[in-house]
Amino acid sequence: MANKAQVLYDFTAEPGNNELTVKEGETITITNQNIGGGWIEAQNSRGEVGLVPEDYIEVNKASPAVGKAAPPDLSFFDTFAPATANVAASNQVDITGCSFQPDTPETPVPSSTSPDEASNGNDPWSAWNSDPPANSANNWAATPEGTETGKAATAGNWDSTAQGHPQAYQGPGATDDDEWDDEWDDVKSTGGYAESEAGEGGANRGAHGSTMKIKFPGFSKSGPELYLLSKQSAKGKEKLPIYMGEVGPVWLYPETQLDCIVADPKKGTKMYGLKSYIEYQIAPNTTNRPVNHRYKHFDWLYERLLDKFGSAIPIPSLPDKQVTGRFEEEFIKMRMERLQGWMTRMCRHPIVSNSEVFQLFLTYKDEKDWKMGKRKAEKDETVGVMIFSTIEPEAPDLDLIDVEQKCEMFSRFTKAMDDGVKDLLNVGQEHWKRCTGPLPKEYQRIGKAFQNLSSVFNSSGYQGEATLTDALTAAGKTYEEIAQMVAEQPKKDLHFLMETNNEYKGLLGCFPDTIGVHKAAIEKAKEADKLVATSKITPQDKVTMAKRVSTMSYALQAEMNHFHSNRIYDYNRVMQQYLEEQVKFYETIAEKLKQAHSQFVTM
Amino acid sequence: MANKAQVLYDFTAEPGNNELTVKEGETITITNQNIGGGWIEAQNSRGEVGLVPEDYIEVNKASPAVGKAAPPDLSFFDTFAPATANVAASNQVDITGCSFQPDTPETPVPSSTSPDEASNGNDPWSAWNSDPPANSANNWAATPEGTETGKAATAGNWDSTAQGHPQAYQGPGATDDDEWDDEWDDVKSTGGYAESEAGEGGANRGAHGSTMKIKFPGFSKSGPELYLLSKQSAKGKEKLPIYMGEVGPVWLYPETQLDCIVADPKKGTKMYGLKSYIEYQIAPNTTNRPVNHRYKHFDWLYERLLDKFGSAIPIPSLPDKQVTGRFEEEFIKMRMERLQGWMTRMCRHPIVSNSEVFQLFLTYKDEKDWKMGKRKAEKDETVGVMIFSTIEPEAPDLDLIDVEQKCEMFSRFTKAMDDGVKDLLNVGQEHWKRCTGPLPKEYQRIGKAFQNLSSVFNSSGYQGEATLTDALTAAGKTYEEIAQMVAEQPKKDLHFLMETNNEYKGLLGCFPDTIGVHKAAIEKAKEADKLVATSKITPQDKVTMAKRVSTMSYALQAEMNHFHSNRIYDYNRVMQQYLEEQVKFYETIAEKLKQAHSQFVTM
Repeated sequence: MANKAQVLYDFTAEPGNNELTVKEGETITITNQNIGGGWIEAQNSRGEVGLVPEDYIEVNKASPAVGKAAPPDLSFFDTFAPATANVAASNQVDITGCSFQPDTPETPVPSSTSPDEASNGNDPWSAWNSDPPANSANNWAATPEGTETGKAATAGNWDSTAQGHPQAYQGPGATDDDEWDDEWDDVKSTGGYAESEAGEGGANRGAHGSTMKIKFPGFSKSGPELYLLSKQSAKGKEKLPIYMGEVGPVWLYPETQLDCIVADPKKGTKMYGLKSYIEYQIAPNTTNRPVNHRYKHFDWLYERLLDKFGSAIPIPSLPDKQVTGRFEEEFIKMRMERLQGWMTRMCRHPIVSNSEVFQLFLTYKDEKDWKMGKRKAEKDETVGVMIFSTIEPEAPDLDLIDVEQKCEMFSRFTKAMDDGVKDLLNVGQEHWKRCTGPLPKEYQRIGKAFQNLSSVFNSSGYQGEATLTDALTAAGKTYEEIAQMVAEQPKKDLHFLMETNNEYKGLLGCFPDTIGVHKAAIEKAKEADKLVATSKITPQDKVTMAKRVSTMSYALQAEMNHFHSNRIYDYNRVMQQYLEEQVKFYETIAEKLKQAHSQFVTM
Repeated sequence: MANKAQVLYDFTAEPGNNELTVKEGETITITNQNIGGGWIEAQNSRGEVGLVPEDYIEVNKASPAVGKAAPPDLSFFDTFAPATANVAASNQVDITGCSFQPDTPETPVPSSTSPDEASNGNDPWSAWNSDPPANSANNWAATPEGTETGKAATAGNWDSTAQGHPQAYQGPGATDDDEWDDEWDDVKSTGGYAESEAGEGGANRGAHGSTMKIKFPGFSKSGPELYLLSKQSAKGKEKLPIYMGEVGPVWLYPETQLDCIVADPKKGTKMYGLKSYIEYQIAPNTTNRPVNHRYKHFDWLYERLLDKFGSAIPIPSLPDKQVTGRFEEEFIKMRMERLQGWMTRMCRHPIVSNSEVFQLFLTYKDEKDWKMGKRKAEKDETVGVMIFSTIEPEAPDLDLIDVEQKCEMFSRFTKAMDDGVKDLLNVGQEHWKRCTGPLPKEYQRIGKAFQNLSSVFNSSGYQGEATLTDALTAAGKTYEEIAQMVAEQPKKDLHFLMETNNEYKGLLGCFPDTIGVHKAAIEKAKEADKLVATSKITPQDKVTMAKRVSTMSYALQAEMNHFHSNRIYDYNRVMQQYLEEQVKFYETIAEKLKQAHSQFVTM
């Protein structure tokens, strides 16, 4: 078993993780080849033993499980990524993480981030403010002005998405649940999703998923022309009808709404307890049979939904990994709550919830079923703008001016709501800080001052003092209780208001991309005459384009109507909840003070 | 009429007060000699006309009403104040203000103080913090250690009193009601109260009264020996008995408690409307016949009470002049409220309320009655420590150890309560600031954010939006209302808590002086043996001293018991009031939020 291996790349061990720091060119001795998860155990020349990513080393004699190999399906990257250490160290292409980051100024947070920076203590929203507003503003402004929505503009849009969904350090006590597990996920089969797993143990650890998305930026890679001029008609059974409802175009809603419960997070371990992860139970109301998923599976689902529906339906990002509590339990609870929120939103969407991939996620029968479903979903060709080819509005075609007006209106509204939501989040964050910081401290000081006076009075030596001193002590304690109530209240009410608005911020952040596709299509349709004149398209193409732009508009309207009805429901609900808790809060304080009041007597 | 006059001292006109700036040596023409109140109207060489203090000028030909003359009764000052301009400009003696300020580092606030500095806006307690804590601490520490309470120590004590009661700039819009009026007050007759009225128009304007007090620092001028070794027995009818009550030694309380209402402040003018003042109506419950008094009369009463009772009874200072509102009405209201508080406390005191001078103040029949009463009061010889000669405890003499223990206990208690009260005042002031500053701003921002979201939603173009947007607007307005409630609440509850504690701070600030007299007496009694041995006193003197120290102790105990019973009443009452208003406040908020809550609907 004592195979020697050459170290191909520098690897720095993460403290407390049983890892071993190795240098390029170093020779190490493999002490355990069967660790799994992309790791081997090795010993260096100084006798130190630890885990090393298996892709970082080359075993001196041939071995089936260990060895460096480029993932088979990385054809897209092959052009850029010759498998040499020197090139891998460049900024543009980092083969260790398979992440391709054009024009992305932000580097992923390295694993050496100090716990203090990453943990937000009492304020789970401090991360919300770090959301890139400048970039977001760019995003909102970046409506295609010219006639070509070229690759650059598209890349710009994607950049912001990547930034809005950073996969940063998860905070102290967080488990590295996602990046390291391939127990039964066939990673290599996913083409665009191939993880050179060990690579993420290096400098780029934690930078995965979101930056991966840009590899096949489905719908916007080639702009809406793909659909507008496509010869292909919708294949097979996949049809997404749109009806005219009371409020205008609407999706087809199922008779019973899908719902699910995300619960029961369980910690699992692998590699003999060296690595741990969290698995959630998701129980849909259709089967009531729970299925297990880890965050990485949610992330896979998100990628599939984004690829497939992103042009027509804003697919909100998954909860950010870096929003954590100070303790593992808090972190898990917070993530679960947000995954629940995300799943609920997806369940409520008539198109998403009814899609094969979403149903697979919720109702797969066994591992084999899941694996097969995954492969099928990853091979789905009706992605990006091609989703519009499945949409069938039962209504007369709209003319271009109408389409454009509607699109403009949605653009304005979503932008305005984005501003409003961000404003509320800022105000809420401020309020959260005051309620958990200076305000309770002040009530505590008031309480202490009363109690202090009470004990001074107690020392007077005067008879008949007891009633007053008892009452003063009680009043003091009441204000200390109020201090605690004030500090705990935001978790009871502001929390949900913030969560809902945060969810909407995420949703609204998707609209610039979605609306951008529509605007690009409209621009394309507008220049149809010129294109016909210059024989770039046929007159028939022009007719087709106009019809398809109309179809896209129906889709956008149906989606907006879905958004509006959900929004009205959500804000009614969250405001009710917020105000209900606020009423309780103030009533409880009044009741406590009434009690305190009753202890004072005047002759 | 066109008399010429020489200007003796520089005088700077106060803007907006019809005054004329003049320079030493300048020749002016008197245009009206009959202005009164210590002013003449004059014209300078540039033709400008205005008021000039008559004491600042020397008329070229003899004139009965105009001319510089030292007030007749200023014998005390004659030694220090030769009537030359040079000496008058020195720091020690300022004849223009007749204020003698030994060791007082603070100079009176000059009349050029900007309104912004003097007005405290929303926070009438900002001045409380500027109360000299260091000096006050000195005061508490300055218990006589040696056997002699010499003049220096006494002056030190008085300094702090003077500082605790500064007569600073009264803020914009405040009337110079007190210093300028001699309509029917025979100022010149008061000996220790002689005002060289015009003098206060100069640089020292506003520095009067409190600094004047040190001229005849009655009781502490010569220490407790005056009483302890006095041959004189209590004269006439004045007897202050002390009984043994349930709680120990108590004063004789009247069957019905005196009370009075200070109300109906009226602005009067004099000097043809050039100067104005405020007159209050004070109606005692004994006669129900209101009498009129101005602040300066209260101040006169305070001085008399301090002179007469200060050794035995803490006489709290009058409300500070400089604590003002931003507007004249607010200022008058605040002062009246505090004068009421002061009068109520004096009425409640069995010894003070029953005293001739206090009864005179409340029940004088006419101007002649008042004037005669004033003269009599000012000639009262039973002042300072001699008040103890009128006290007759109906109880066996106490031994010195007992006396000393009790005195120590009172000293510790009043010091501890002083700390406690100051702590509460600081906390209250902080809270006041937050409630009137950042907190309502935050609620307003929350309210605005809701309303902003409401108006965004209104622009959606989606049907069936109205219920939500109306509800959101209502919720937003509710939070704006809450903002206002929060900002206004301190005036409704914290105000009275602060006022009461401020009153107690004032009262407690008198104890070091009062207790100091007792401690000095105890020290004196302790060295009686030595004094007998060195034939400084006779053995009979020693017996007398012991008896008199016992009498003093009974007086202190009676006073402490009075203090305690009042304190228990006051704190019960103010806490009841505070908590009652707090309950109302929180209940109202809860009710408003309940209303707002009811407007949201979920389907």
